[in-house]
Amino acid sequence: MTTTPLPPPDELARARLLVAPSLDGGLVQELERVAGRAAEPLTDVPPSPSGVPLLCVGETLSDALRTDRLLWFHSVNAGTDPLLSAGPWPAPALLTRTVGRMGERMAQYVLGWMLAECQAVPEFTAQHARAHWERLPTELIAGQTALIYGTGRIGAAVGRLLGACGVRTVGVARTTRSGPPPGFDLVVGAGEDGGALADARWVISTLPLTPATEGFFGAARFAAVRGATFVNVGRGATVDMRALEGALRDGRVRRAVLDVLPTEPAAPDDPVWRLPRTVITSHSSGITADEDVAVDFAACWEAVTAGRRPALTVDVGRGY
Amino acid sequence: MTTTPLPPPDELARARLLVAPSLDGGLVQELERVAGRAAEPLTDVPPSPSGVPLLCVGETLSDALRTDRLLWFHSVNAGTDPLLSAGPWPAPALLTRTVGRMGERMAQYVLGWMLAECQAVPEFTAQHARAHWERLPTELIAGQTALIYGTGRIGAAVGRLLGACGVRTVGVARTTRSGPPPGFDLVVGAGEDGGALADARWVISTLPLTPATEGFFGAARFAAVRGATFVNVGRGATVDMRALEGALRDGRVRRAVLDVLPTEPAAPDDPVWRLPRTVITSHSSGITADEDVAVDFAACWEAVTAGRRPALTVDVGRGY
Repeated sequence: MTTTPLPPPDELARARLLVAPSLDGGLVQELERVAGRAAEPLTDVPPSPSGVPLLCVGETLSDALRTDRLLWFHSVNAGTDPLLSAGPWPAPALLTRTVGRMGERMAQYVLGWMLAECQAVPEFTAQHARAHWERLPTELIAGQTALIYGTGRIGAAVGRLLGACGVRTVGVARTTRSGPPPGFDLVVGAGEDGGALADARWVISTLPLTPATEGFFGAARFAAVRGATFVNVGRGATVDMRALEGALRDGRVRRAVLDVLPTEPAAPDDPVWRLPRTVITSHSSGITADEDVAVDFAACWEAVTAGRRPALTVDVGRGY
Repeated sequence: MTTTPLPPPDELARARLLVAPSLDGGLVQELERVAGRAAEPLTDVPPSPSGVPLLCVGETLSDALRTDRLLWFHSVNAGTDPLLSAGPWPAPALLTRTVGRMGERMAQYVLGWMLAECQAVPEFTAQHARAHWERLPTELIAGQTALIYGTGRIGAAVGRLLGACGVRTVGVARTTRSGPPPGFDLVVGAGEDGGALADARWVISTLPLTPATEGFFGAARFAAVRGATFVNVGRGATVDMRALEGALRDGRVRRAVLDVLPTEPAAPDDPVWRLPRTVITSHSSGITADEDVAVDFAACWEAVTAGRRPALTVDVGRGY
């Protein structure tokens, strides 16, 4: 783990609070209340006194602020890859993130689209539009197997919800510890997933984007799939889209539900819209609500001021 | 409870096995294996010897077979209202039914359509067709309240699944016993459901059709609804369709998902297709699979031959 120091109390006490201008006024008030100071917009380098440390809350960080003056950055999103890839992280700065009810939200997204397929929701909706009454086959997800990439907070939330619906859940982790973590019936290592891919009815990714996961779902992995539906709520760039297209065309991948894409938003002429048996949603599975940001920032603040490392600290070396 | 006698062993031993011609060959073989005799088609009155008792497996029963010769009828469906309303039930005959994994199937149907609404599945599907990427609001079902009419096997299966997804489940029963049955956080009586209707985000019916439930969801009940989505997996004739239409038009009912209709199938010119914010599916939520019929018939057979009343016995007075 790449540990960053906790902000020293005296530094935190005199830090300026900078918040992204995109944040809602009510949320900013709540952040001001927690931090006990007025907020300024996180836009330009604040003017002198230049030595005053900075506590920032937002989505992105300009190069001008990637200095030793940055004491703590709280991300309003769970995925911090845009922050970490845009420039070197200033060593002394703590990075924390918002997760909120994201795991729960993403789990309901995943389950919703699984059931939509099994209950023929799009097909019945289309039949209804034609005033056409016809029985369509449906499928029970209970007893099916879902392979879930990522066994962290989000993967575990997906596993728990699917497990509650009778789905057998197999997690894929970077390293397998002793016994499956909560939410999983079984966990395999990322290098030993070939057999599990062949057995799965559902392949679900919750992977973050890191140097280790870029293009992770490539031709070799898709070649092992035997009729599973692929659901991606992680990051778009973890998927080699040409490999996915090939697997959809030859039927190894039954369907795809993509909430994330390598390039977002997808332009109307983007070829991703023409992938067979695929539905693209708008990176909406795990939207963080303002309430999530306020709650998670307050939890981090409480930990930091008590001298504890917040549970929502990002390991800037690992990337999440 | 209107009890019908169990078939006496000597009568059962010499009974002829009649099965509906619509049944699949593999299922018929399985029924023959369980009953230890060859099956004949359940079509006409079997020829003499006229005194031989009859064991029938099917969906409907002709008047000619509603005689004292009928020893036992096993319904391949869970809903036996077509059987019971088509003519008087011959007093000495046992009536059993197939439930199979119907509760589980119906629960997944209900959850699937709830999540389809909350995850904007039809809207995202339509956006995809237009190659249009736009964020749409989604909703978490966790923490919402579902009012479930019917607390029997099917209602309880719905309650259990929704409860596992964090939904608060309130059952509505004919009579409230001491404490809620499994699958429900709370149970209210059918005459005391006004407040619960106002609080519910979801109103779900699993009610069978009996003289007591015909038109059960009428103007008075819908008047108490405050923005709930109505989901019917019970029977179509339990709903006063004009009252439902009024409640949809004035917005008290947010949406409707109707797997059952008073008249099925709906013809292309049936006005039900034009109900606002409604989707009609084809009485498909609880289709019984051949495997369900085989398993449930075998369970009834085992009980009867051991002198026990099968758990799947229909109370012909109550209607389910």
